[in-house]
Amino acid sequence: MQRLLRGAEHLVPEGGLEEKLALARREGRPLRVKLGVDPSSPDLHLGHAVVLRKMRDFQDAGHKVVLIIGDFTATIGDPSGKSKTRPVLSLEQTRRNSESYVAQATKILDPNPDKLELRYNSEWLAPLGFAELIKLASSYTVARMLERDDFTKRYAAGVPISIHEFLYPLAQAYDSVAIRADVELGGTDQLFNLLVGRDVQRAYGQAPQVALTMPLLEGLDGVEKMSKSLGNYIGVAEAPEVMFKKAMLVPDALLYRYFELCTSFPLGEARALIEQDIKEAHRVFARELVRLYHGPEPIQEAEARYDHVAKGGIPDDVPELTLSADATQDGVIWVCKLATLAGLSTSNGDARRLIQNRGLKLDGEVVEDVNLQVRLDAPVVLQRGKDRFVRVRL
Amino acid sequence: MQRLLRGAEHLVPEGGLEEKLALARREGRPLRVKLGVDPSSPDLHLGHAVVLRKMRDFQDAGHKVVLIIGDFTATIGDPSGKSKTRPVLSLEQTRRNSESYVAQATKILDPNPDKLELRYNSEWLAPLGFAELIKLASSYTVARMLERDDFTKRYAAGVPISIHEFLYPLAQAYDSVAIRADVELGGTDQLFNLLVGRDVQRAYGQAPQVALTMPLLEGLDGVEKMSKSLGNYIGVAEAPEVMFKKAMLVPDALLYRYFELCTSFPLGEARALIEQDIKEAHRVFARELVRLYHGPEPIQEAEARYDHVAKGGIPDDVPELTLSADATQDGVIWVCKLATLAGLSTSNGDARRLIQNRGLKLDGEVVEDVNLQVRLDAPVVLQRGKDRFVRVRL
Repeated sequence: MQRLLRGAEHLVPEGGLEEKLALARREGRPLRVKLGVDPSSPDLHLGHAVVLRKMRDFQDAGHKVVLIIGDFTATIGDPSGKSKTRPVLSLEQTRRNSESYVAQATKILDPNPDKLELRYNSEWLAPLGFAELIKLASSYTVARMLERDDFTKRYAAGVPISIHEFLYPLAQAYDSVAIRADVELGGTDQLFNLLVGRDVQRAYGQAPQVALTMPLLEGLDGVEKMSKSLGNYIGVAEAPEVMFKKAMLVPDALLYRYFELCTSFPLGEARALIEQDIKEAHRVFARELVRLYHGPEPIQEAEARYDHVAKGGIPDDVPELTLSADATQDGVIWVCKLATLAGLSTSNGDARRLIQNRGLKLDGEVVEDVNLQVRLDAPVVLQRGKDRFVRVRL
Repeated sequence: MQRLLRGAEHLVPEGGLEEKLALARREGRPLRVKLGVDPSSPDLHLGHAVVLRKMRDFQDAGHKVVLIIGDFTATIGDPSGKSKTRPVLSLEQTRRNSESYVAQATKILDPNPDKLELRYNSEWLAPLGFAELIKLASSYTVARMLERDDFTKRYAAGVPISIHEFLYPLAQAYDSVAIRADVELGGTDQLFNLLVGRDVQRAYGQAPQVALTMPLLEGLDGVEKMSKSLGNYIGVAEAPEVMFKKAMLVPDALLYRYFELCTSFPLGEARALIEQDIKEAHRVFARELVRLYHGPEPIQEAEARYDHVAKGGIPDDVPELTLSADATQDGVIWVCKLATLAGLSTSNGDARRLIQNRGLKLDGEVVEDVNLQVRLDAPVVLQRGKDRFVRVRL
């Protein structure tokens, strides 16, 4: 129980999980634990992994995870064209995304068919007729739907809510009916939808599921929710050395939270470590993360490479740029132009400011002169900040 | 045009009907004029006839009426069980009601297939899938739906509105898309739904229909909307003498409105008549009504019978009750018991009060004595009020 609730944010109803566990024990069956997945963005990062790891905890406790790929709504999209979060995907695109999702999710979930059931919700939503939909829609009221935070705000602000937007939470709730979910997991932003599931299950004569939500993980910037588009993420499929390096960038204030939500590391030990030696605590977290997603083997090398760069060393696998002679004057090029061609600055002006702030290195040395002319007889390594390197040759 | 707009309450958009007529003329086709019909209450009265007569005006002007029987929602009913206006009907019951409705409606409408198209909306609503329904629901917003008068009031009062109730107006609007309505008619209480039809047609790339509503006719009590359950109605299938008698009961203040909405009688003439001689105006209206629903033949007899009774005479076709001798004591019976057995009072107490109020006649004479014993040697006629008679014999 304690492990199942580690890090959980909401549990509705309180004590409901204990009852479900007792019921499952009496009936000699595993709990059916539902997770709905939007197949529109298939790249998993640690933010997604928070919920998947919780699902894994349920698997490890002997229960069955039912992963529901929301292919139906993905192929419909938003016919009003108002929501950017619902792009229309083709059926093939959806299936491809789903396969990629499952491949990544099974780095975390146990793929054993006794423990993992994979379902596409088009199975029961596509054949749903108007009559059945009227029944479904009769199980929930307009007023309660408008209590959902984003609807409340939009309604108050006079921002149009199309009626079909009320149907999506009902469709998700119907998923719970279709698979007879005992428990549904989700991010905290899904709490409302999970609770709709409880009411709709009740309307269909089923025992309402327990809703269990996990917090949304802040990204490496320490402020925004982790997201690919904000660039503040650690992807679960990233290479060990990238993962290690990014793990070292987790803000100190969030390190405990990352231990709690992203690893199974004992929390007492984590807290003690953080209090005693925050640098070492970061390393422990980074090693733990690489171990989780890549196993123990690459840990040592990932850490060694991190240290090499941290000490001012140039990593081995720096991206390379080969310039054409036309870009130079007899093999000589202005340092600002060079930095921009290498993608380390967005313009010559940006490069100038960078140099004035002592933020650009050439072969390990800080560039002092904004007018420096660089001779490219041999390859040079340009470096912006701690970790952006480009090797340039003619 | 003038005839098409006689008595109309709302026309949206203003001038829209002229445009539609011009378009139909240019395209050499009739307008498609839609009327949606709820098959749950098949007995037509003059209140229903107001809209049907307007449809007939369109037929007479060369257009095509599309009568849509709402069989789909009738067979669904209201799964939340909250609305009493949506009892679940079996498919057979719905078809029976519809046939009865059509039989009555074609007393008013021209049944010529060039002018009347009969459709059941299950034809297009039953196969509507979830994806199509999402599209339909995306064409309208929650805020605008909540502007409907009854929804506004219920929402403000905290009376639950189930989400499926938002789907019914959309279904009705989709009917307009399915039959490509140019014009939709309805009672004024339908104005909102007719306007939803305009928006939904637009979302489906169709030119929006013109919405034309007719007023709700007050019943014979002069206050409430005409309705069968309130007993303040004149049925279109009632016998000529009943129709004539009820027509004479129309409140003076409403007579002009009845002329306007229930007949094609010239309005200037009606107004002059009402001003000159209200009694005669009633007779003209009553004759006109009988002519409309039964033709000219029975007018004279209906009026003669009305006069006979009005002068205190006993009509010829009084219902008869034959008592068994057991109900009497040697052929004699207490007047109160007699009135109750004849169905003119609900109890002996009711009969007693009736007699005390001088409301019961025996063979044309007011009964003065509540203890009167009536001898049934020959048949007697009991009379309550002006027009309830029963002939009783042993």
